[in-house]
Amino acid sequence: MKAEFIFGVDIGGTTTKLAVITDEGKIVEKWEIPTNTSNHGVSIIPDIAAAVKLKMTQMNLTKESVIGIGVGAPGPVNMQTGILYTGVNIGWDKPVALRDELSQQTGLPVVIENDANAAALGEMWKGAGGGARDVVCVTLGTGVGGGVIVNGDIAHGIKGAAGEIGHITAVPEGGYQCNCGKKGCLETVASATGVVRLAKEEMDKSNAVSALHKMMDEHNAITAKNVFDEAKNGDPAASAAVERLTFYLGLALANLGSALNPERIVIGGGVSKAGSILLDGITEKFKLYAFPTVAESTDIKIATLGNDAGVIGAAWLIKYKH
Amino acid sequence: MKAEFIFGVDIGGTTTKLAVITDEGKIVEKWEIPTNTSNHGVSIIPDIAAAVKLKMTQMNLTKESVIGIGVGAPGPVNMQTGILYTGVNIGWDKPVALRDELSQQTGLPVVIENDANAAALGEMWKGAGGGARDVVCVTLGTGVGGGVIVNGDIAHGIKGAAGEIGHITAVPEGGYQCNCGKKGCLETVASATGVVRLAKEEMDKSNAVSALHKMMDEHNAITAKNVFDEAKNGDPAASAAVERLTFYLGLALANLGSALNPERIVIGGGVSKAGSILLDGITEKFKLYAFPTVAESTDIKIATLGNDAGVIGAAWLIKYKH
Repeated sequence: MKAEFIFGVDIGGTTTKLAVITDEGKIVEKWEIPTNTSNHGVSIIPDIAAAVKLKMTQMNLTKESVIGIGVGAPGPVNMQTGILYTGVNIGWDKPVALRDELSQQTGLPVVIENDANAAALGEMWKGAGGGARDVVCVTLGTGVGGGVIVNGDIAHGIKGAAGEIGHITAVPEGGYQCNCGKKGCLETVASATGVVRLAKEEMDKSNAVSALHKMMDEHNAITAKNVFDEAKNGDPAASAAVERLTFYLGLALANLGSALNPERIVIGGGVSKAGSILLDGITEKFKLYAFPTVAESTDIKIATLGNDAGVIGAAWLIKYKH
Repeated sequence: MKAEFIFGVDIGGTTTKLAVITDEGKIVEKWEIPTNTSNHGVSIIPDIAAAVKLKMTQMNLTKESVIGIGVGAPGPVNMQTGILYTGVNIGWDKPVALRDELSQQTGLPVVIENDANAAALGEMWKGAGGGARDVVCVTLGTGVGGGVIVNGDIAHGIKGAAGEIGHITAVPEGGYQCNCGKKGCLETVASATGVVRLAKEEMDKSNAVSALHKMMDEHNAITAKNVFDEAKNGDPAASAAVERLTFYLGLALANLGSALNPERIVIGGGVSKAGSILLDGITEKFKLYAFPTVAESTDIKIATLGNDAGVIGAAWLIKYKH
């Protein structure tokens, strides 16, 4: 029997996503299991191995029909050794031999990658990247993540820190403190929390009572979605916050664009659901600040795979990098 | 006879540098010929072919002993087709089939690359890059050029515009007009002309008569070297200009560093002769603005190959990319 199925795994802080995927990148079946982070996450690998073996039984898959398991994990990865240096969100405070342990427990080949990189590969292969060989992905969620693909391969850098687009310094002076230890990171102004922070600043600046002010008064909080929705309605504070967010993102991506001239820049994550108000704003600033050839030839798109990007990218890895 | 020699060629606006190089990257002999840009540069390829053939005769080299010719050319290159899109500095206002024409005229394999990229590969292979697989090179001359190497290979991007580090927007608002068409490019403030411009701004700002003022009065002009020399002597205007230059460069490289985490960033070009005052300033700003893991793991070094970087990088190309 020809090997034609791949297991894609995306380990998250609360749940681990799994999928059975064809070697063409089509999801046949997907499901989730809880990520058990207790006791330094000691049961995470056995839980994944058990889930894979159970699914193989249920689907009558032989080992010969499975190419292998691709895994996206939340931390820096050494691709050569198959070790995850740390995964603080899942209780792994020390390096874990994720690749070899999972391979031993399943009898299948395993390839591991950082989760943001896996998502970028997924978008490159089957999503908004459209198969391009040079793609930059940026994920706007609670934080800002990223993945950089050059010549069809992920950039890892010397210590696995490539792709830390969220920690590009967007505000060199007077920026907010970031969790990473430095100040003014893109993440502090261009994430879901960042745009709320910018909207609050804008509300404080102006005496005009806006729709956002009313929301604050009613709910004692506003969300990134509120900010984008009210910006679409023309609320001045919300509009100014979105304008600043698109400036920071557009400038950072333009500068990365001038260095890499990717075919595609893909914007994903929860904030990307804001849609055209976000995409148009970023694109306008990108065209203003990027080297002219780059402004003309690099396309910016909203991600299309959503939460499936990670498992699909992990499947790509086992197909092409094993 | 084992093929063991490579011709490295670096086509410049005034002269074309040539070298015979061993397959280990050692220069055996180097020389220059004029670049004849007249008549749309029609004789450039025949001149190079003649120079190569003459040298082979003089050195008693057979075709079998030569691996091929690597060429760095001043313009965007399509590596697949071997075509230089344009080379405005050498009279090539239309695409030229540089690879195939030179190969036909010499009977040798040819690989071509953009000159800044070839220089980056040279520094990676035998210079300050020290063989690292992830290297960013930035060349501070009259303009600012660059080359980005990821996973051991040059980033070209979708239209060959990758590596345009000089056109990163360093001054988003109120920046100087750049030759590329946009404003505030790194090149307008971090090149030899850029630092002179910053020094003049600083002199205008202050009433204090500095050593630079005296030079301006005497010679009606100052050079980048003057600015760095006087900064070393503690001249306030010169020091402020160098401080600003290192801020712009340090921030731009830190942001590129957070995206790529290269093992080495190599600073070359005439301005890099300023030495430690430049390197220390850039490094200080880099560590302030880069993602902490990158600040710790990415080293910044001054280029070591000088004008030989291009021919050595071209030789690397024929060895590894033919």
